Amino acid sequence: MDSGTENNQIEEPESKKQKLSNSDEKTRKTFEGAKVVSILNNKTTQKCLFLHGKFEDDKEKDAVFILERKPFDTKTEALQELLSDKTKLTSDLKNDIYSTFSALPSVQNDIKATIIYPASEKHLRKYRKQDIFVVKETKEDYNMITKPYVEQQFVDKIFNIQWVYNILDHKAEMERIIFEDQNEETGFVLLPDMKWDTKDADSFYAIALPRKRGLKSLRDLDESHVEMLKNMRSKSLAVIADKFGIKQDRLRMYFHYQPSFYHLHVHINHIELDLPGTGALRAHLLDDVIENLLMQGDYYQRKTVSMTLQDSDKLLAAFRAKENNVSDV
Amino acid sequence: MDSGTENNQIEEPESKKQKLSNSDEKTRKTFEGAKVVSILNNKTTQKCLFLHGKFEDDKEKDAVFILERKPFDTKTEALQELLSDKTKLTSDLKNDIYSTFSALPSVQNDIKATIIYPASEKHLRKYRKQDIFVVKETKEDYNMITKPYVEQQFVDKIFNIQWVYNILDHKAEMERIIFEDQNEETGFVLLPDMKWDTKDADSFYAIALPRKRGLKSLRDLDESHVEMLKNMRSKSLAVIADKFGIKQDRLRMYFHYQPSFYHLHVHINHIELDLPGTGALRAHLLDDVIENLLMQGDYYQRKTVSMTLQDSDKLLAAFRAKENNVSDV
Repeated sequence: MDSGTENNQIEEPESKKQKLSNSDEKTRKTFEGAKVVSILNNKTTQKCLFLHGKFEDDKEKDAVFILERKPFDTKTEALQELLSDKTKLTSDLKNDIYSTFSALPSVQNDIKATIIYPASEKHLRKYRKQDIFVVKETKEDYNMITKPYVEQQFVDKIFNIQWVYNILDHKAEMERIIFEDQNEETGFVLLPDMKWDTKDADSFYAIALPRKRGLKSLRDLDESHVEMLKNMRSKSLAVIADKFGIKQDRLRMYFHYQPSFYHLHVHINHIELDLPGTGALRAHLLDDVIENLLMQGDYYQRKTVSMTLQDSDKLLAAFRAKENNVSDV
Repeated sequence: MDSGTENNQIEEPESKKQKLSNSDEKTRKTFEGAKVVSILNNKTTQKCLFLHGKFEDDKEKDAVFILERKPFDTKTEALQELLSDKTKLTSDLKNDIYSTFSALPSVQNDIKATIIYPASEKHLRKYRKQDIFVVKETKEDYNMITKPYVEQQFVDKIFNIQWVYNILDHKAEMERIIFEDQNEETGFVLLPDMKWDTKDADSFYAIALPRKRGLKSLRDLDESHVEMLKNMRSKSLAVIADKFGIKQDRLRMYFHYQPSFYHLHVHINHIELDLPGTGALRAHLLDDVIENLLMQGDYYQRKTVSMTLQDSDKLLAAFRAKENNVSDV
């Protein structure tokens, strides 16, 4: 999941949606009784660890522990306390003006811990590291595998984009709309992504949803949509500069392929935001899409599109079942 | 900098290249006497903080302090000690099966600290956060701004790729070569990137350098280079599968634009590696480049290429000087 707005499509346990409840369970003061079963994932760059565990008093039930180091507190006093004689240093290396140490500060040592208990198999699956694979989707693969797969998911109501139609029809989230162009052919709705708090302009993140229905992804785009795409680009940039003071040279505008929901949408976010869905194997810049369509009207019907799919992704299973994705180079 | 191999081009203070020296200075046991001057950068996702500081005993000199939280130690005993009654929890939120805490562990609290002292203005500049800007380089911009800029840098010997020719001519790094195809038109040298320890296949990172000279970047590629690119792709994939057991569906192959040195080169790395240079605004997939050239022979001479440039980048200054990069949308 890259976008909160898109979460609507993803199953969440009902319980998460409940209001804060008074639990019978006493609030834990320590991890007493916790036992590590296995490491689900270890994101070393982010310093975040996902553990499968149990509690001694009920070994039938599972728990998920998420431990994450906190960013440094940069308040002046906190910083100066960190950089003081209270921080013990053990030298690792000294080379001229460069020295490295293992440092043990007396402050700023707390981490963020999340416990999910009791956790279902679904939770364990959600947090367990998934291998990812690069898949090259040729035009034939799209027509033979991806398109039928997506359509079947709609038939089976596994993909449901009613929430998008609710936004377009003003049945939901109307108060969140940043800007709207009501033209049925070229119009769109611009609204904040769920991940954005709508306060801090430096973490600006919005989604532009075309009013036009039936466009599932960039695979459906041809030269007839250039006017719509240009309209979405220019009006979004103008309103974002006007309302939030962010110029176009500080914004990224792109499609995901595969998208996480199949109503075409443009991600617009601040260039300084460090987001996982902005890699070359997932993000297709709006500017490039427009220019490719102008160069070659059926570019996205002809193009082999490379993408990554997770091990557990049913689309990957569909590719593997056809066994035609092992295209020779 | 994304690639160690590319470091050859970047100026490093001579001192860094010296062997480990015995310093007169006593090894520090704490940060005693350190004073925070300012925050140079705060990478919250990576939990890494860059500070400009001074030491009380010599306020004329500057210091750079780099503080980084360590990844969790996942050895079984270390994990179990973390998940024990020795870790104090303060409840932040409780909602049904979900609880979040601020946790203070008694172990695994050390961080990695680097001190550069005395630090030059160059060091401060290196670590100070740079704003980045999205620049759309049209074909005219390339011909009028980028190409003359790059050529002038070669004339002024600011860009120097002698080290690449030393590799191609077997005058340097010969023992590091993974594979070589000596054809002068389609051949190339494959060698590990400096960042790769050449041991752990999961962090595989290599660079493929064509033998053909004069290709500065993907802007110079046309249909006449497709054979070379396909050759680099197929032979690299074959040798990587053979020597390192990594299949093509676990690899990313791409060019950077702008590159950090101007002899064409392909980055090849393991898909699980979390690398900054793989974003859609920098990385151009080799497969896409080949296909675009097959669709349209002069694709990369015609294409507007979006890229990010840092505030301090002289190329950005060149774009701004021409004032023609504020292209209307």
